[in-house]
Amino acid sequence: MEWPKLAELARDAFPEDVIARAKELQGEIGSIGAYSHSQGVSFIRKNVARFIEGQFCRHPCCNPPHPLPFSSFPQPTPRAHLPAFNPERDGYPSDPNHVFLTAGASAGVTLLISVLISNPNSGILIPIPQYPLYTATLAAHKGIVIPYHLDEEADWATSAPEIESAIRKAVDERVEPKALVVINPGNPTGALLDEATMERLVRLCEQHNLVLLADEVYQSNLHARDTHPFTSFKKVIRALGSSVPLVSFHSISKGVTGECGRRGGYFECTNIPDDIIALLYKMASVGLCPPLAGQVGVDCMVRPPRPGDASYPQWKTETDATHAALAQRTKIMAARLNALPGVSCVDSPGALYLYPRIRLPAAAIEAARKAGKQPDTLYALELLDETGICVVPGSGFGQKEGQYHYRLTCLCPGVDEYVGALERFHRKFVERHGSS
Amino acid sequence: MEWPKLAELARDAFPEDVIARAKELQGEIGSIGAYSHSQGVSFIRKNVARFIEGQFCRHPCCNPPHPLPFSSFPQPTPRAHLPAFNPERDGYPSDPNHVFLTAGASAGVTLLISVLISNPNSGILIPIPQYPLYTATLAAHKGIVIPYHLDEEADWATSAPEIESAIRKAVDERVEPKALVVINPGNPTGALLDEATMERLVRLCEQHNLVLLADEVYQSNLHARDTHPFTSFKKVIRALGSSVPLVSFHSISKGVTGECGRRGGYFECTNIPDDIIALLYKMASVGLCPPLAGQVGVDCMVRPPRPGDASYPQWKTETDATHAALAQRTKIMAARLNALPGVSCVDSPGALYLYPRIRLPAAAIEAARKAGKQPDTLYALELLDETGICVVPGSGFGQKEGQYHYRLTCLCPGVDEYVGALERFHRKFVERHGSS
Repeated sequence: MEWPKLAELARDAFPEDVIARAKELQGEIGSIGAYSHSQGVSFIRKNVARFIEGQFCRHPCCNPPHPLPFSSFPQPTPRAHLPAFNPERDGYPSDPNHVFLTAGASAGVTLLISVLISNPNSGILIPIPQYPLYTATLAAHKGIVIPYHLDEEADWATSAPEIESAIRKAVDERVEPKALVVINPGNPTGALLDEATMERLVRLCEQHNLVLLADEVYQSNLHARDTHPFTSFKKVIRALGSSVPLVSFHSISKGVTGECGRRGGYFECTNIPDDIIALLYKMASVGLCPPLAGQVGVDCMVRPPRPGDASYPQWKTETDATHAALAQRTKIMAARLNALPGVSCVDSPGALYLYPRIRLPAAAIEAARKAGKQPDTLYALELLDETGICVVPGSGFGQKEGQYHYRLTCLCPGVDEYVGALERFHRKFVERHGSS
Repeated sequence: MEWPKLAELARDAFPEDVIARAKELQGEIGSIGAYSHSQGVSFIRKNVARFIEGQFCRHPCCNPPHPLPFSSFPQPTPRAHLPAFNPERDGYPSDPNHVFLTAGASAGVTLLISVLISNPNSGILIPIPQYPLYTATLAAHKGIVIPYHLDEEADWATSAPEIESAIRKAVDERVEPKALVVINPGNPTGALLDEATMERLVRLCEQHNLVLLADEVYQSNLHARDTHPFTSFKKVIRALGSSVPLVSFHSISKGVTGECGRRGGYFECTNIPDDIIALLYKMASVGLCPPLAGQVGVDCMVRPPRPGDASYPQWKTETDATHAALAQRTKIMAARLNALPGVSCVDSPGALYLYPRIRLPAAAIEAARKAGKQPDTLYALELLDETGICVVPGSGFGQKEGQYHYRLTCLCPGVDEYVGALERFHRKFVERHGSS
């Protein structure tokens, strides 16, 4: 093998900044075939911390890009020289020692839930509908699900009073609430929390001594940034001067790249005592280290190409186009679903999904009962058989008794063909099973 | 970016069979950035099953290599055309649906232990000394460690009567033994089980209704194949016609490649009922899928280059040289450690380690007690400070009361410098703390 030759040829095939980044990462990591620090490569955790802070080096001298000292380190360059590159993030210090790289967000969530379930009465507040990772992990760790319902009538809003009432009910049943899970942007709802609601949730965690588990993996999937921006819970907690313990999760499996198979993500701990950080580190060490390919993916996510970089124009064009297509497709699909008889669908300002509600004919509900299936599962299976479209029935995410939904991704490029098939199927299904 | 150009240039830089394999894997996987089946890519699991069976296609027509139908599939080519490529493996059918690809062996062990610990009295038999993954995972899942000691005087042999007595003691204490962990080749001992012992252990699992968890991750790290060959527990169980439930673990983090950072491995279930397989699949699904880079690593491990492949000569030379160097180094290091005052070391026929026993001066033991440390931890810390050599104290692996050991890897190329530093340190340590 002639490695030097290939390296030379790669110079012609990849933009300069991509090769510089690869060399920089190779220098820091050594080999992706070797174990890293169990918490993840230190250099990448520093970059994550800078991403969370929202501070990036934009000094004209700093070309090619160089690692920027993050806030807890001495700063050789004055702050004025380092404008925020990502104004959507926090503006508050982040400590790389409180960042854990993980094999996707699910690995982090599993670790945290395993630590929080300390006795058989431990419960965790979970939104309904929810991504089933939470109920599944709680079941595996013998923890108790304390459900709280999102409000479909109010565009899947999260309600503090609803959570309060779930807590009261749990305490009456001798369940000890340990943590509150919030998914923002929502999965499967795509809803975004406004800051006033987030402040109320933080105060509620203060009152009830809850750890806040913020699943923020869809933070860059925003279809209406002006009206529905993303605000991190870290920013709200710091702005309030609150001491609520927070763990926020992010992942490379979402965004516009969706590098799911590499298994990369991170969580950041805020207001978590050092002895708990040490315990999390010890538990992470049992699995040796997160996959290096995923860690490299995290680095790419938190340090995207910047204006002036050779790869920036292509990255910017592709990223903007994918964001715009997703936003437009979501809007069209929601409108067309809403036009169908018996279907109502909240137009989602974030994430990758729509979660339409379907009113099913009584005969369909009876047919499902006879087949030993949930009615929305019957609907989803017939949809799959007839169109090849795979949706997840609402019974997998949780819904109110007697209601039916399904989760639909908005990733399919041919929206007309895709929604057309859905529409034809829906009309036929209603006809076949008689109108309710 | 000019991808076609790079692909064309790569043709000059990589051997033909390497490019053919990359294309084949790309065809089967699609993208390593996408999720795979939660159990792992089907094509790779089929290759794992063939590796376990020991059957590989060597038909002259089959060039370039093509996927070989494995035993549970129809076989278009007669068996006579498919001689065993890896005679060290089983010769019994393996079902790819009973193979789970994992993020290293540790992820598989964690999954199995979490399933086996079904109530607060559940215990698992663990060898002492052991790789601490087992006790750590049991602690995290609130399972009980039932220790059984390996016999240092008999080259770290595993003794069925010793295990029997550990079971009796556990049952007396109302602990319910669920499974027997056997590490073969041993970590940290490097010992290899002979078939007679393996048969006794299988019979013992039958008698006591134990699941056998066989950690076989060092199966290719053999320093004395003639006198100490590796035999899989699957082969022994099949040869005996036993119905003992077995889960055997393998990993890409060992062998002579040691691709630890990719996080790849697998476990195979034998005599495990379908409903348990379904449960394991459900639990694996919570983590979505194993890292694709690790899965590709598993494929490379179970399908090494073959005679006739362009990359074979280089692969063979490098592999043989690394195996030989490791074997020779282990022998030299064991001999020199045994020549040191107060040190005895079983010469290890497998794995990557030596586990010497050290007799420490009474003054050193007292100094450690005052410092709140285990005596072998004090030894290891002083060794690290003075030489930069990092060993793991025996107290991390478990040892008999009043005994002290450390685990030493045999991976360092400059054996003379390495052992020389160890020797000088040991003599100084004994001198400093006075002879016992």
